[in-house]
Amino acid sequence: MIKKYIPDSLINTDAVVVDINKEDFDFSTSKLDIFNIHKEENKLILEYDMPDDEVVYGLGENIRGINKRGHIYNSFCSDDPCHTEEKSSLYGAHNFIILSGDEHTGLFIDSSSEVTFDIGYTIYNKLKITVRYDNCALYIIHNNSDLEIVKEFRKLIGQSYVAPYWAFGYQQCRWSYATSDAVRCVLKKHKENSIPLDAIYLDIDYMDSFKDFTINKENFGDFDELVADMKKDNIHLVPIIDAGVKIEKGYNIYEEGVANNYFCKDKDGNDFAAAVWPGKTHFPDFFKEDVRVWFGNHYSDLIDRGIDGFWNDMNEPAIFYSENGIKKAFDTLDSYKGKDIGVYDFFGMKDAVLHLSNSREDYSSFYHTIDDKKVCHIDVHNLYGYNMTRAAKEAFDRNYPDKRFLMHSRSSYIGMHRYSGIWTGDNQSWWSHLLLSMKMMPSLNMCGFIYTGSDIGGFGCNSTRDLVLRWLAFGLFTPLMRNHSALGTRDQEAYNFGDTADFKNIIDLRYSLIPHIYSEYMKAVLRDDMYFKPLAFVFDKDRHCREVEDQLMIGDSLMIAPVYTQNVTGRYVYLPEDMLYINYTTNGVKQYKVLTKGHHYIYVKLDEVPMFLRKGHAVSFVKPAANTTKLDTNNLELVAFMDKDSSLTYEFYEDDGISKNYSLDKITNITVNMDAEGKATIGECKKNIKLITRS
Amino acid sequence: MIKKYIPDSLINTDAVVVDINKEDFDFSTSKLDIFNIHKEENKLILEYDMPDDEVVYGLGENIRGINKRGHIYNSFCSDDPCHTEEKSSLYGAHNFIILSGDEHTGLFIDSSSEVTFDIGYTIYNKLKITVRYDNCALYIIHNNSDLEIVKEFRKLIGQSYVAPYWAFGYQQCRWSYATSDAVRCVLKKHKENSIPLDAIYLDIDYMDSFKDFTINKENFGDFDELVADMKKDNIHLVPIIDAGVKIEKGYNIYEEGVANNYFCKDKDGNDFAAAVWPGKTHFPDFFKEDVRVWFGNHYSDLIDRGIDGFWNDMNEPAIFYSENGIKKAFDTLDSYKGKDIGVYDFFGMKDAVLHLSNSREDYSSFYHTIDDKKVCHIDVHNLYGYNMTRAAKEAFDRNYPDKRFLMHSRSSYIGMHRYSGIWTGDNQSWWSHLLLSMKMMPSLNMCGFIYTGSDIGGFGCNSTRDLVLRWLAFGLFTPLMRNHSALGTRDQEAYNFGDTADFKNIIDLRYSLIPHIYSEYMKAVLRDDMYFKPLAFVFDKDRHCREVEDQLMIGDSLMIAPVYTQNVTGRYVYLPEDMLYINYTTNGVKQYKVLTKGHHYIYVKLDEVPMFLRKGHAVSFVKPAANTTKLDTNNLELVAFMDKDSSLTYEFYEDDGISKNYSLDKITNITVNMDAEGKATIGECKKNIKLITRS
Repeated sequence: MIKKYIPDSLINTDAVVVDINKEDFDFSTSKLDIFNIHKEENKLILEYDMPDDEVVYGLGENIRGINKRGHIYNSFCSDDPCHTEEKSSLYGAHNFIILSGDEHTGLFIDSSSEVTFDIGYTIYNKLKITVRYDNCALYIIHNNSDLEIVKEFRKLIGQSYVAPYWAFGYQQCRWSYATSDAVRCVLKKHKENSIPLDAIYLDIDYMDSFKDFTINKENFGDFDELVADMKKDNIHLVPIIDAGVKIEKGYNIYEEGVANNYFCKDKDGNDFAAAVWPGKTHFPDFFKEDVRVWFGNHYSDLIDRGIDGFWNDMNEPAIFYSENGIKKAFDTLDSYKGKDIGVYDFFGMKDAVLHLSNSREDYSSFYHTIDDKKVCHIDVHNLYGYNMTRAAKEAFDRNYPDKRFLMHSRSSYIGMHRYSGIWTGDNQSWWSHLLLSMKMMPSLNMCGFIYTGSDIGGFGCNSTRDLVLRWLAFGLFTPLMRNHSALGTRDQEAYNFGDTADFKNIIDLRYSLIPHIYSEYMKAVLRDDMYFKPLAFVFDKDRHCREVEDQLMIGDSLMIAPVYTQNVTGRYVYLPEDMLYINYTTNGVKQYKVLTKGHHYIYVKLDEVPMFLRKGHAVSFVKPAANTTKLDTNNLELVAFMDKDSSLTYEFYEDDGISKNYSLDKITNITVNMDAEGKATIGECKKNIKLITRS
Repeated sequence: MIKKYIPDSLINTDAVVVDINKEDFDFSTSKLDIFNIHKEENKLILEYDMPDDEVVYGLGENIRGINKRGHIYNSFCSDDPCHTEEKSSLYGAHNFIILSGDEHTGLFIDSSSEVTFDIGYTIYNKLKITVRYDNCALYIIHNNSDLEIVKEFRKLIGQSYVAPYWAFGYQQCRWSYATSDAVRCVLKKHKENSIPLDAIYLDIDYMDSFKDFTINKENFGDFDELVADMKKDNIHLVPIIDAGVKIEKGYNIYEEGVANNYFCKDKDGNDFAAAVWPGKTHFPDFFKEDVRVWFGNHYSDLIDRGIDGFWNDMNEPAIFYSENGIKKAFDTLDSYKGKDIGVYDFFGMKDAVLHLSNSREDYSSFYHTIDDKKVCHIDVHNLYGYNMTRAAKEAFDRNYPDKRFLMHSRSSYIGMHRYSGIWTGDNQSWWSHLLLSMKMMPSLNMCGFIYTGSDIGGFGCNSTRDLVLRWLAFGLFTPLMRNHSALGTRDQEAYNFGDTADFKNIIDLRYSLIPHIYSEYMKAVLRDDMYFKPLAFVFDKDRHCREVEDQLMIGDSLMIAPVYTQNVTGRYVYLPEDMLYINYTTNGVKQYKVLTKGHHYIYVKLDEVPMFLRKGHAVSFVKPAANTTKLDTNNLELVAFMDKDSSLTYEFYEDDGISKNYSLDKITNITVNMDAEGKATIGECKKNIKLITRS
């Protein structure tokens, strides 16, 4: 049951796709549903006393735990690569939470403005939410299950983006493979080491001077040949597209944008200029439909050359500095010159330079045109990356109506989940970030972002062999499985740490599981369900599950428990019920053991992956292959854990993986029957199934 | 068995106090003991292939685990408050490691220069150590026990600093209590809430313009009265002393230093100037004995006014900027002015300002006089804080020969452990830093630093109620138990989070345990033993213990297992043998339960502290009191875990806590006998003992 409340007006975010009448409610009263409310200046404050054992879920892409208690979060899309514990904002703004205790309440704050969630940070048991009174809609959902609240919410915001099947293959990225030879080398090394691969990314250096929709002729002069050569090996090239458009006379995108008034304006009505990678740029005003059409159509500049996947970056938008900002910084620095600089002056000096980037001042100094009105960027900041990505997706749908494209974006707002996936931004090669990325997954799923994953091995800093292996062993379960690392850091491709067999073994498991992962993914998308679930969403009567944050459910059948600590041979695992422990080990060998409900310590070598299958459920494997095109789903190995004298149905979703002809009709129900003696048989099925059962 | 090797020459660090003849060894050969060696330019390289299950211990104050494998560490004392996983250097340089596998090898690299330990970072199983060929001594220790190697090493480097008894009380710090009223308020609040306290710290604002050995007359005009008033409540004031001396005509320390040539020189022989808190400063050349005498004697400026504890800070030394550095930065910035600044220029600009502080260039631009020779600071950088602290301790010993002072230092080198403790520097209010501080403790103990602890609650960033409570519940076991937070962060004193009973309960346990903690501390100091031990140092046959890094042994009797995760009600604990689980809970109530060897999940509320007592061992408690002066050790509660028909001896060390009349003679052996029926009695003992036994 969803109720909608709007205190005043609302800049339409298009997050919600279902028309719900707003409640007739008097906001001058002090109570709205379970929340105490009041107005402070232009802010609406919602407060709530959290019982000790209540869990707060949600907030999508964010730091900290699955349970968001004990911190303060600020929805303000931020390009900040240092995701340490004290941060309040990452790249996305995902204002959906669930208060889960004896009662279950979902709350979506739909606002293009900043929203602050103080969840027991200032006062231990007090929730305090602050949002602009004149720019928000509140959706409150009551249900007796957290998962059902998610499903209701997801229905409200519309079906999640569907990625092509090949996008479930292993993907390799680096900032940057700066030449076509470097790209070819990645493929060559994968082939030499028999490590599967489906995609290689092009970071900013493939462009001519970082100009969107151009190719660097010097280093990628053979671009078309490169695309064609990659295709022969079923490798997709995935170029990056940045939000800012370089100011350069004669550059078509720039010229078109200027001529047609497509760019954001400064206060005087001139095209707003700020520096990002290409130097001075203008920012397309993606809130205007004609701008979205124009920019979106330009993706075809690359699609026409054989590209079918993109990632949209720097679209918070990141701003290194503005003309105005740098002038002020120089003025500040000049004021210190020749003086005896005191220490506080010195810190002032440092700040003048450090705070140049992504400043609120810059975000307050340019304007969009929304419904013919001039709107300051700061009021719709959180929707910018969303609308950039929407431009692309609308163009894909318009120009290639029956084809799926890979697309993920760095910045996002709820609503964008209909247009693309996201990656979790510029993380670091830290063990803590492997754990953090695990915790982000179910939160993202709650907010509609199902096609997602973190930069495996960590983007910034140098990674090590064991960290990449452990991260792969988690990443193999994420829909987006991409290894990515930054300029100046150690090469962290799977073939760069010696003894590639360990890496191959883990990536092989990914390919072996792709049909199952894709099936679980598609069912989650089509049913508004979650692919990654907190344990407590499945075992909602088990109080202990509420605080297990280092294990995740994939769908309803499989539990994973990745190792995220250095120099250990294993980890603790909690089983909410008896489960089949599938230990995937060296050379792709799977070992099976029934473990009883409770706490266990399991041993996990660097090339191993533990999985836990629920009773009454099954998981399917195929033979790994060099890429997704070569996977054979007519021959399945089905592992089922079931009681004697029982039967189960494994719902296997399968489609062509590229057209939009997807629906729940594509599910094949595979039935397994086990008799009282433990002999198992497969029900009628067109597939060739090798059955492995335990009971 | 210790062997000493010197490839070439060595700047004497005074780390080692035992005279050992150096081995007659030909460094042109390729093998030294277990290490492959070679020379590369002016570097000596030691390499070693680590078996898969070998653990590498040591490196004192550092990031990462107790097992140092999988990272690269660089001994170069660094003022860097952001202790993230990728960092290689913190404030100390502690070049001692133990390779622990089937064989056990200790290695101390005594060098005033930078030393790099690549412990399976570049190549997974390869240890590679790089040190200046012409400035190192290598000490190699073989033994069949890690703990015995530590003891041999500790004997080599001399007995650790002994803190006064009052320094085991709870200590409260903040940057800053800026007025004497603020200091009084801390005490008042502690009294009002009946939370014990022994010390309040004065951070830099107590000084006049951050000038060492001065008092800010405006805010601490009643300094003498303040000291006296605090004394009435047995509160010790602990002022900070910084390394740099403000350049200010008429300021006595400056004038004396200039007149007597006490400061470090630049390349032209002028007193080297760089900016720190006071603005432009000179740095005393603590390598000269006359400078140590002069600076050390000035601590009496404060001691004479009733002070008996200090902390030495900024003694890496931290340098915000040098004249030269800031000129270059301005030149760089000027070169960009008016230009169309490209993005790489922009990063250059940022770097020019960011890299001003603590630059290698500055450290290479000033000089010490050592044995009448001019030595560049960079070659002895790691000894600077050590020698500053030595100056103080030598003065204390000279001027107050029979009195102990509290002293801890931020920067350190092995050898300084004889002169003071250390705190673990400017950490953050991160849960990961609570765990990190736990892991640092045994590593520090190996290197001789027994009186140590981390800033409870975290120094930088804002803390939360639960984080402070969990951190206290660990910090109560560290010899130095200090709550400390930075300027601009939330007040995190124990009375600032509401419901102070939880805080009182945990700090009360500290006071209840102080006699036991002090006893264990003194035995560790006097026996060259460790106070905090990795589990594997006690249970060396138990392979699993080698990877348990979130539990620690205190001495040989008590195991602790602090909670370091937010939003949990408990944690896993591994018991290497049957133990008595002592659950300290609300209102100081202790619950007892025998737990069997193996893995357990225990529940720990925010005001609770779990402890685990080994069989055949005992732990003593006293009644908590408002401060250490009021603790009554004539009445002990002795908790013993023992088999029926057995006896045990509890070694209880006790002395006057302030004089240097300490020795192992001060141990009282308390014997507990249990008969076959489980009835327990105390052997002859002058104390009044309440006996609690379990078997």
